[in-house]
Amino acid sequence: MSVLTLGTVAFDTIETPFGSSGKVVGGAASYIALAVSQFVRKQHLVSVIGEDFPQEFLTELSGRGTCLNGLSLVKGGKSFHWSGKYHQDMVQRDTLATDLNVLVGWEPKVCKSGNKADFVMLGNLDPEVQLAVLDQVNAPQVVVLDTMNFWMDIAMENLKKVISRVDVLTVNDEEARQLTGEYFLPKAARAIHKMGPKTVVIKKGEHGALMFQDNKVFFAPAFPLEEVIDPTGAGDTFAGGFIGYLASRQEATGEVTWEDMKQAVVVGSVMASFTCEAFGTSKLRGLSMVDVQQRWREYTKLTESGLISWPKG
Amino acid sequence: MSVLTLGTVAFDTIETPFGSSGKVVGGAASYIALAVSQFVRKQHLVSVIGEDFPQEFLTELSGRGTCLNGLSLVKGGKSFHWSGKYHQDMVQRDTLATDLNVLVGWEPKVCKSGNKADFVMLGNLDPEVQLAVLDQVNAPQVVVLDTMNFWMDIAMENLKKVISRVDVLTVNDEEARQLTGEYFLPKAARAIHKMGPKTVVIKKGEHGALMFQDNKVFFAPAFPLEEVIDPTGAGDTFAGGFIGYLASRQEATGEVTWEDMKQAVVVGSVMASFTCEAFGTSKLRGLSMVDVQQRWREYTKLTESGLISWPKG
Repeated sequence: MSVLTLGTVAFDTIETPFGSSGKVVGGAASYIALAVSQFVRKQHLVSVIGEDFPQEFLTELSGRGTCLNGLSLVKGGKSFHWSGKYHQDMVQRDTLATDLNVLVGWEPKVCKSGNKADFVMLGNLDPEVQLAVLDQVNAPQVVVLDTMNFWMDIAMENLKKVISRVDVLTVNDEEARQLTGEYFLPKAARAIHKMGPKTVVIKKGEHGALMFQDNKVFFAPAFPLEEVIDPTGAGDTFAGGFIGYLASRQEATGEVTWEDMKQAVVVGSVMASFTCEAFGTSKLRGLSMVDVQQRWREYTKLTESGLISWPKG
Repeated sequence: MSVLTLGTVAFDTIETPFGSSGKVVGGAASYIALAVSQFVRKQHLVSVIGEDFPQEFLTELSGRGTCLNGLSLVKGGKSFHWSGKYHQDMVQRDTLATDLNVLVGWEPKVCKSGNKADFVMLGNLDPEVQLAVLDQVNAPQVVVLDTMNFWMDIAMENLKKVISRVDVLTVNDEEARQLTGEYFLPKAARAIHKMGPKTVVIKKGEHGALMFQDNKVFFAPAFPLEEVIDPTGAGDTFAGGFIGYLASRQEATGEVTWEDMKQAVVVGSVMASFTCEAFGTSKLRGLSMVDVQQRWREYTKLTESGLISWPKG
């Protein structure tokens, strides 16, 4: 199984009430690719960087089985840079700077083997770029789309085109409401089903994630961390863990069931919890599968309520 | 097993963006008592009402096995009345009126058999009243305290006295932070353990509930409702379902284990979901155990992720 990952590979500068990151490697595809690489050894990255981007990070991605043929390097260009400041609640944030740099005018190119990817992860980016990538992939089995309110504000028409072509949409609760005009999430999910995606994952940050498919619903809490250092990239990491796990199940069993999807939400939540524990990608880069399995075991205890029968009234 | 329930029995007038309740029966103890009565047939209510309170509601409570000897009736008095208006998010709310009425100067009296209650539910009220009730109970096995930010603002010293004498504290996330000065909930829970309660339940409304005990943690989501009509009383209902279930387990097995506590959080969440579906106590009053069991079965599917093993990395 191979996964094609689209998104930014970039720099972030982050301030929280508890500290500052300085300029660190970030970008949706950086988080996604690192998370996917825990589960799948064949990944194609589609992104763009400038000459300022550290080779060492790319070497690490390569070492984790990521093909970089779809990663454009703009000579003399500067990588995308986002800067933001979190409020006291570590959820709300203000954008301080968005330097598009090499993203301007970039036309994504999927390499020859990337064209045949079985799983496609469209990380948060301009819907036009997401469409351009979808057009270059032959017959993916599962396409997952992550997006955000920004694109709903300025590119709703193109966004709806992408949405109509994907299997799974992941958005946060406010975005699900904005996209559909429905306040209550089960209704919002049904409205999104009608736009195309059979499966809708609503990410609620520290409050966990809800997944809807037909009349089925599944909930996974966020891992209750002792401390959140920086939530940036948690949603991307979730998406990477989600699709990476699905791809590994497809490889192991030849199919992706509802049970697999549920476990994928759990895996995504587990992976995202690591990202929150440090600035940037640093925690994710140092992870071994042993760390991941250990947290997963702790995590599964979180909602195991046993099978005590209901008392007679 | 018998449960002693303390709290207001009162009137509410509620406005939401979607409708108005008119003046309906409410009050913490009304919700708690109705929820408890699904699980335990011996309950002692300690509260106070005026002559304006409908006999019909009291008859229903009696019919559900609630002893009303501890319910004071103030002749010529008016029952406590709260009026509030919910914001668009159905979580934030503004208090429009708080008419204390018969609550002023009320001294709670626990009746002779109430004194021997095994389980005590101290619903949200002035900590001084909660202390007065605790002083009248001989040797309860489990005391659960529900309180709110209001008492932290104006009666912290007395509140801490109550907290030091209870086994379980239930508060919402903001209240846990206010009480302890700790932002992250696992740390807040540890700080609360040090104040006395071995078990801390943090209610997060539509985002579910977290329970901490020693180094153990358990999470239960809120049932994803199609529509929330009125969340007033959901926290009280949660507390009633929680302690009612614990009492039923004690009766059935002679003990209350961590597994029982986890299931009690689930039961509380299930019961609270009904309260949100209508104004006031109307949904809760019409419930049969069959309705409850059916929702509980749906609920348990919510977080059942199966026991698929972690993929080899």
